[in-house]
Formats: sequence, structure tokens, C-alpha cells
Amino acid sequence: MSKRVVVIGAVALGPKAACRAKRVDPSIEITMIDRDEVISYGGCGIPYFVSGDVADIDGLRSTSAHVIRDSSFFRNAKGVDVLTLTEAINIDRDAKTVRVRNLKNGIEKDLEYDNLVLATGASPIVPPLEGVDLPGVSVVAIPKQAEDIKNRISKGHVDRAVVIGGGAIGIEMAEALSDLWDIDTTLVEMADQLLPTAFGREMSLILKNHMEEKGIRVLLSERVTRITGDPETGVRGVDIGQGEIPCDLVILSVGIRPNGGLASDAGLDIGPCGGVLVDRYMRTSDPDIYAGGDCVEIPHLVGNESVHMPLGSLANRQGRVIGTNIAGGSAEFNGSVGTFCIKVFDLGAARAGITCDQALKAGFDPVYSVCAQADRAHFYPTQELMYMKLIADRKTRQVLGIEAVGYSGDAVKARVDAVAVLLPHKVLLDEICNLETAYSPPWGSAMDIINNAANTLENIMAGWNIPVDVIDFIPEFEKGDIRVLDVRSAAQSTPFVDKFGKDRWQNIPQEELASRIDEVNNGEDQLYLVCGTGPRSYEAHLLLREKGITDTRNVQGGMGIIKVSFPGFAPEK
Amino acid sequence: MSKRVVVIGAVALGPKAACRAKRVDPSIEITMIDRDEVISYGGCGIPYFVSGDVADIDGLRSTSAHVIRDSSFFRNAKGVDVLTLTEAINIDRDAKTVRVRNLKNGIEKDLEYDNLVLATGASPIVPPLEGVDLPGVSVVAIPKQAEDIKNRISKGHVDRAVVIGGGAIGIEMAEALSDLWDIDTTLVEMADQLLPTAFGREMSLILKNHMEEKGIRVLLSERVTRITGDPETGVRGVDIGQGEIPCDLVILSVGIRPNGGLASDAGLDIGPCGGVLVDRYMRTSDPDIYAGGDCVEIPHLVGNESVHMPLGSLANRQGRVIGTNIAGGSAEFNGSVGTFCIKVFDLGAARAGITCDQALKAGFDPVYSVCAQADRAHFYPTQELMYMKLIADRKTRQVLGIEAVGYSGDAVKARVDAVAVLLPHKVLLDEICNLETAYSPPWGSAMDIINNAANTLENIMAGWNIPVDVIDFIPEFEKGDIRVLDVRSAAQSTPFVDKFGKDRWQNIPQEELASRIDEVNNGEDQLYLVCGTGPRSYEAHLLLREKGITDTRNVQGGMGIIKVSFPGFAPEK
Repeated sequence: MSKRVVVIGAVALGPKAACRAKRVDPSIEITMIDRDEVISYGGCGIPYFVSGDVADIDGLRSTSAHVIRDSSFFRNAKGVDVLTLTEAINIDRDAKTVRVRNLKNGIEKDLEYDNLVLATGASPIVPPLEGVDLPGVSVVAIPKQAEDIKNRISKGHVDRAVVIGGGAIGIEMAEALSDLWDIDTTLVEMADQLLPTAFGREMSLILKNHMEEKGIRVLLSERVTRITGDPETGVRGVDIGQGEIPCDLVILSVGIRPNGGLASDAGLDIGPCGGVLVDRYMRTSDPDIYAGGDCVEIPHLVGNESVHMPLGSLANRQGRVIGTNIAGGSAEFNGSVGTFCIKVFDLGAARAGITCDQALKAGFDPVYSVCAQADRAHFYPTQELMYMKLIADRKTRQVLGIEAVGYSGDAVKARVDAVAVLLPHKVLLDEICNLETAYSPPWGSAMDIINNAANTLENIMAGWNIPVDVIDFIPEFEKGDIRVLDVRSAAQSTPFVDKFGKDRWQNIPQEELASRIDEVNNGEDQLYLVCGTGPRSYEAHLLLREKGITDTRNVQGGMGIIKVSFPGFAPEK
Repeated sequence: MSKRVVVIGAVALGPKAACRAKRVDPSIEITMIDRDEVISYGGCGIPYFVSGDVADIDGLRSTSAHVIRDSSFFRNAKGVDVLTLTEAINIDRDAKTVRVRNLKNGIEKDLEYDNLVLATGASPIVPPLEGVDLPGVSVVAIPKQAEDIKNRISKGHVDRAVVIGGGAIGIEMAEALSDLWDIDTTLVEMADQLLPTAFGREMSLILKNHMEEKGIRVLLSERVTRITGDPETGVRGVDIGQGEIPCDLVILSVGIRPNGGLASDAGLDIGPCGGVLVDRYMRTSDPDIYAGGDCVEIPHLVGNESVHMPLGSLANRQGRVIGTNIAGGSAEFNGSVGTFCIKVFDLGAARAGITCDQALKAGFDPVYSVCAQADRAHFYPTQELMYMKLIADRKTRQVLGIEAVGYSGDAVKARVDAVAVLLPHKVLLDEICNLETAYSPPWGSAMDIINNAANTLENIMAGWNIPVDVIDFIPEFEKGDIRVLDVRSAAQSTPFVDKFGKDRWQNIPQEELASRIDEVNNGEDQLYLVCGTGPRSYEAHLLLREKGITDTRNVQGGMGIIKVSFPGFAPEK
């Protein structure tokens, strides 16, 4: 008799596992069920549907050849049976059956399985706030919700919106509402930065400033206390304690949690994040039952803890592994290094590994560099600065994480991916110094920002470069406690010298410093060294030390980072 | 007494080594010499100066802060003495001196060294052809030659040009001449493809077609027999045996060879490519003498042989290693995996590892996949196809090489770099199947082309996917020996069915194939399966096999690869 497989959930992992199993062993009989009628859609495309970049919601559930992936597609093209509007109620592991209910007519039946695949996904967290049920308040997890939001907007009912939660979906939704629809949008985040689990404060600040430049009001360290309005006319505002933000639409994007209930009820092991636990073959604690995608948690290959990483990219990879293994193979999925990227208006941001905060919690001793460098050779005509943070462990020199932001998302992704794929190999910083990525002037520098970030970090670890972060330097300088030596050209420095006075902001170009060492405005306080992006101030740092002026700090990433971190700091020209 | 270091050569590696050594140990006294007056320039930018993208030649020898890197810059900003127009004549290793000659006044003297750095670079090969000395015939290695060429062009003396050699410099120069200056340009290459040491025939053909689309005449498998003209009026044409190509400018770009003479005369070990041999600390066979950059050869970390890789990116990395080691450190440079990228008009092309031909020579048993996939999620509004070839060893599954071409050079670089950095770790194909690169719809698919190329290759190795290359399929089909089953939609297939007849080009959409299996135009010949980019024809391949139709082949990359490889093949719409 043929092997019978039941797949619960038909969005990302479920279809991938089913189709792969069927391709490897066409004799397997597969039944895939889903509570919804709309299946096999690209959930990560939902914000782009709301923004209008994707015109038709069916675009998210079509193949690249424009065929809609519905039940008959799976039957005809893939040989997989699909029951939509069908809910799994419970699993009888001894009998190897799943009890399912048809949501149209309420009829229940048992499906027999040899292998079961749990692809139950995750659900958006609805915060326990007064007013979350009001019309105009919505999470954004499934196409139906996105369509409702878009309908509301296109009818002209939305002038002002509040997005609660500054994670990826919150940021993408804020951009979607503001950019095309020109809705006055406020984003409220409880933490003191955007994307706190993905980025450290440096890259996060650049993203926040860019969003504000694009017209989004970003409120950090703010907690929503209630949502106001009435059940007839809908939402009226969002209360953040010291006042109400009036609005006609509220997007709830405070996080998502794995749907582990069915697994847990069946006695399968659940992890600390609430996700189903799986081994490297994607088997649950019952070897006949596989699970993957947004309902599982997986090992973090740098931080070593178990993490919930609800990404379509991981779901697809895991789905293929499950499909292979159901068909008799032994494919493996070992975990994640937490790669992530996001488009934020004109910027692309990407990261992999762990942040400094996460590294501290995991028992590492993180040291990091922050760099700015052009995404093309400096002589190439079109170029933009990229910004990067590279983190390694002081003692072992193991690379722990990389974060980057820039105007070419592809270029940012190129840098982060090249380090991301090495993280499972626990490579040392020295390997990144010489990392051999492809070079040609239209797409990078002979010494790429990755190499320079690693070289800078090596110099910091050696004690040669004693850095200060822009994010600490500017408030310190504005308090008036420190002095600056700006080693850029006179033309570049003059506006700063004029604004702050030469006692506080002195200019000696780096190439003149050796001969003008006696002029250095040395004193009791620390001297902070600034240049365009960091290399010249580092040279100055070394020269001053050689000359006995040792109490100096090198401002990491120089004016390149200052401009995007504190856009109001530089004097008007 | 301070350590004395002499650096011979002041273009890329020399300055990097000198400045790094000085930063790590400011007490070192460094003298850098160069035969030329113009030093420390980005040689890789020369084609962009000729094209006009870089307006001023000084742009190639300026820092990113627009300071010219001349002798006084190195003295003042870096503490390094430079002697320009000074040639090294010989090395006395026992006395630890270098004999140098001032090229302005002929005066010779000895420079004493504790460490010597050979950064003597490489020289373009001038083929032993009649006419290579004629006015208007030039290699392009130093800024002076580029300026002469640009002067000649801007005076209106050049209507037609011939580039001899289809390597990177030849291609970049052909684009430079044609794109901005609109010069009628012919490129002549001896081999049967462009860039034969970098790419296999598939990606190379895409680049050739694109160059032709942009108006370059590309002649492959052609050998230049002589250059005609007269010493007064200059070059008149290039003779390729069966006829003369008239022209006013000839660019010689047939290759470059390491300048190993000085090292060889001093009894230092030279490798099979003619480059100076160095260990992982970049020391020559004399441990007091370092060498790096274009004058050395280095281990290939996949192919295992010694290679000459004259790239500014490697020179800079090696220069830093030498600088560190001169200053008492022990930095390492282990070799190269041959990463390379090039802009060819609107396309970016990149590669790493070894080609199939190189793999065969190195004793591997290479198997490969060829894929086409969009560079963004398929539902994202702006996107272009990328093309990729992935190569692994059949027995060990070790990944040997990756090649890719696409319209976003940054996106192509992102994919190739992510595999390139893993090659020194000798990773297996399975790791690429699950490779965790950053995903978001604006910059990729949930299953990226890298993952799909690896999955396809895995299916090929398993014997499930029996591929045929477009480059073999089209000529075979045009001979009339084979039949095609096109499993795209009727709308997409009809022009092909109309053009070739339904006996030769049959259409059954993949989702209808199971129910229409009896209609398949099966016969004695092999059946070739075609779809848009390959996945549907693979599904068809499996279904037909299940139904007993086994003599089928899957056309790799489908119409996506056909369109860019044989642009005339698809019927007019």
C-alpha cells in the first residue's frame, strides 16, 4: 500500500513539503488541509500588496508563470489533494489519525497517516488592550486582512494611521501606508529603538532617521495604553499615556507566536519560545510527525539558544527537507544564523548572527566596529555610502554578527550574506579581513567595506584603535565636555569650526598633523578625532599616540555616520 | 636602530604594505621606489577613465577625500619616503641592499634593507605580431597609455577600433570605446568563447550576445596574423587571415605576465606561472624578502594549483598582510578561490572557484546545473532574470565553482560572494541547498536562485533530473533530430508550435499533463522538455518517467536561458 501523508497547513512549508515528497516518490498519497480557502500565498508580500506595488492579491498566490496555486492546481500540477476550509481538531498518535472538521458543514472525519506534517504557522499577537476589536484596528497576517485594509484606504476612509510595533511588519506597513497612499502615519514602539532583536542601536538609528525624513512619525519607548473609538464609527485614536494620537486606522504588529496548540495537545515537545521542537531531520518528538515553518523553533547557530524565526525563506528550505525525508531520504536542516533583511523606503538593511546585547546574554564578550564606505570604488561615478557594524568575541575572535544599511539593498545584502554563510562555521575575525569577495569598480572597492570593518575591528582588539561611537560622542560633545580634532580638509571643517569655535572643534588636516603637532589643542579632557569616515582620524590617533598625546578617541565612521545618525548636527552650508 | 624597509613598486600592494607597516610600528623607516612618476593609482579604473565615467585621470590616484596620492602625500600623511622615476636594478641578498638607478640623471646607489618588499607588478603581453609598434596600437596598463588613447579618440581620430583579446580588460575596453564614444568596435578572441578562464560556455555566450546586442562585433576562434598600417599615419587594419578589419585604433589585451625578473635574478624561487613564489606569510624563498600583488603566484584553494591572479583586491589584502608581518606580526594570506566580477554594458557577471574544464584538469568529476530565476520575489514589480551555473564534484559532492550573470550586478555579486567565501571550507552541495542568505521580496525569492541551483544539481546527481544544455539542445533541434514537449501555457507555446509544427514542438501545459498523458508525442527519438525556466519541465520529466516515458531530457533553464543564448530562436510575436 502507498504511504499516506497528511499535511496540516497549506501556506508555505506545507505545500513545499508535499510537492517535494511527491516529486521524490510519486507513489505517496498526500492530503493537505487548511482552515482558510486561500492557500499557498507569499505572506511576506502582503505589505507590498497594501502599498500597491503588487496590484492584485492573486499575485501573491500565483506561480512565476502566473498560474493560481489553488486546490485544483495542487491536484493537477502536483498530484496533491487539498481540503480547504478544513480544520485539524486533534491528533491521535496511537491510531495515527488526524480528526478534521469541514468548516462549511461542520462534518468531522479522521484522516489516517503514516507521516504527518505540522505546518500550522504562527499567529499575530493581539495585545490585551481596550479597543483592539474596534473597526479599523487590524493585524496583518493573511490576505483577507490586507484586502480589508486596502479597501478601507481606497474608499478614502483613512487620513491618519498608527502602527503599533516597530518590527519588520510594522516598518513595512508604515512605509506602505505612507509612501503610496500618503497617509499621515505614526509608528509607536515600546523599546528604545526600531527592530531591537535584529539590529544594534547604530544601524537602527539610521533607519529611524530615514523613516522620519520620509514623513513617518516614529515614537520610541512609548507604550500604548488603549485604543479609542466606537463600535459604529470605528477607531478614533491611540492613547499613549501622555496624549491621544488621532487616527482612522491602527495596525497591530507587536509580534507573532507559533501555533503549537495542536502539537502540544498531542503531547509533542514544545520549546521555550512556544514552538514545536524538531531535530535536524525536522522530526518532532514523535518520529512519524514532522513540523516546520512558523510553528517550530530551531537552534540558533551562533547564539546557541532555540529561536522562533518565522520567515518564508526558512519555511521553504525546511519544507524541502521534510519532503525529502518523508520520501525516504535523510536531508538535514541544522538551524539558523538569523539572517534578515528589510527595505525601509530608499534604504536596505540586513543582518546576520547576533547583536551585541544578544552576545552578552549568550556569554560572549562582544567587541565591534562601525564603518561607513562607498558601495562602489571611490572613483566610480555613481555611489552611495554603506554603513556596517561587525561584531566578534574578544577572547576567541569568533565572528558573532554583522549588520549593514545602505541605499543599494542588493549591495547591502551582498555584504551581509557573505558573512552570514560563514557564521555556522564559527569563523574567526582574521578570515573576514581577507574575505575574497568579487571586486570590480562598478560594485565595490579593492578593499571592500567588509574587509575594512574586519580590519578596523582587528585594530580595536589590538588596542591600536580606541573608538567612540557617534551615538555616544554627539550627546557628549553637545554637553560641552569634550574637544574635537577634525583632520579633514580646511574646506570640509570650516563650517564646524565656525559653528562650535576653534577651542571646541579644531581643524588640522591629517597630512599636516605631523608638522603641526605642537598646535594640537591638547588639554585635560579627552580629544575626540573626527574625519570623513574614519581612516584619517585613525592615522591621526596613531600619530598623536606616537607623539605622546595618548588620551584620544577615534569617532567610528566619522562624519559619514554622524550625518545619518544626527542629521541636524552638521552646520548648514 | 630602526628597521629599514625598501618597497619596490608603488602602485597597489607597495603603498598598502608600507602604510600598514608604518601604522603598526611607526619607528620603521620605509623607502618606496617606482619607475614611474605617477604612483598609487587604481589600475582597475583605467577602462572607466577611457569611457569617460571617470572624467579626470587624477581621480584614479586620489583618496576618497580627493587628496592626490603623490610622493608628498606619502611623506606627510603616511610617513613613507617615495623615490619616483627610480628603477631597481638588482638585489644583493647577502649585503641586503638594492641597487637603484635614478631615471632622470642615471645616478645609481644602494639602498640598505632589513626587509624588502617586491611589488613589481605585471606587464601586459605584447604579442609577437607585425605592426604592434605602429602608432594607434596600444596596451592599456598604466594611466599614460589610457591618456594617449583618450587623446587620440577625443581628437576625432578614431572611428573604428579592434580589441585583440576577450579577457576582462579587452571586454571593458570594448565597452568603453563603443558605449560613450560610439566607436565601431570589433573584439577578436582566439578561444571559442569570451573569458575562457573565468566562465564556462553558458554564461560566456550570454555575455557575447549582450555585447553584440550593444553593437560590438565579437569574433571568436580567430587569430590575428598581423597589424597593418604605416609608421607615419598609424594603424590601418587588423589581419585575421581571411580578411582585414579596417581600424584606427588597436587595443592589445591578450594577457599579462608577472614581473619576476628582479626576483629571479636574485635567485628567489619562481613558480610555474612565472610569478614569485611566496608562503602564507607572503615571504619569498628569502625570509627577509616579501612579495605580493601582480608579481606573485598564489595557491588556488579549490583547484590546488598555483595561479597568477592580478587583481587590485588581492594586492590590497596581501599588502596589509605584508605590512603587519614586517612590523612583527604573523598575518596570513592562504590563497584565492578565483573570485572575479565584471560589468559588461548592462550586465554584471561574477564567478568563483573553477570552471568545469578546470575541474576536469584538476582531477574532479564535475557535474553542474544551469538555472534562470528572477532577482526579486516573482510577485515584486521590478525584476530581471539572473542566470547561474553551479558546479560540484560527483563523488565527494564538494562545491567547485559558481558562475552568474544578471542585470543587477550587485545582486549577481551577492549570490556569487555567498558561495565564494565558502569554497575554502570545501563545503558540500547540501550546504548550498539550505544556504541561509537574507530574504525579503525586494531583493530575492524565498527560495533564492542559489538554493534552487543547488537543489537542481542535487536532483541531477540523484539521477532524477536528466538535463540537456540549451547550448547543445538548440543546434540539435535545428538539425531536426529531436522533438520538444513544451509544458508552458498554450498562449506561451503557440508561436513555437506554429513556427515548428506540432510534430516537432508539441504543447501540453504541465498541469494538464497527467490527464493528457496519452497525447504525448512519444516516439523513437528522445523527447526534450521545455518550460519557462525549468521547474515545470522537471515536474513533467518526473511524471513522464512515472508513466513509463523514460527517454526524456529536461532543457536546463528553459526559455529563460534560450532567449539570452539564442536570441534569434524565439518566434517573433
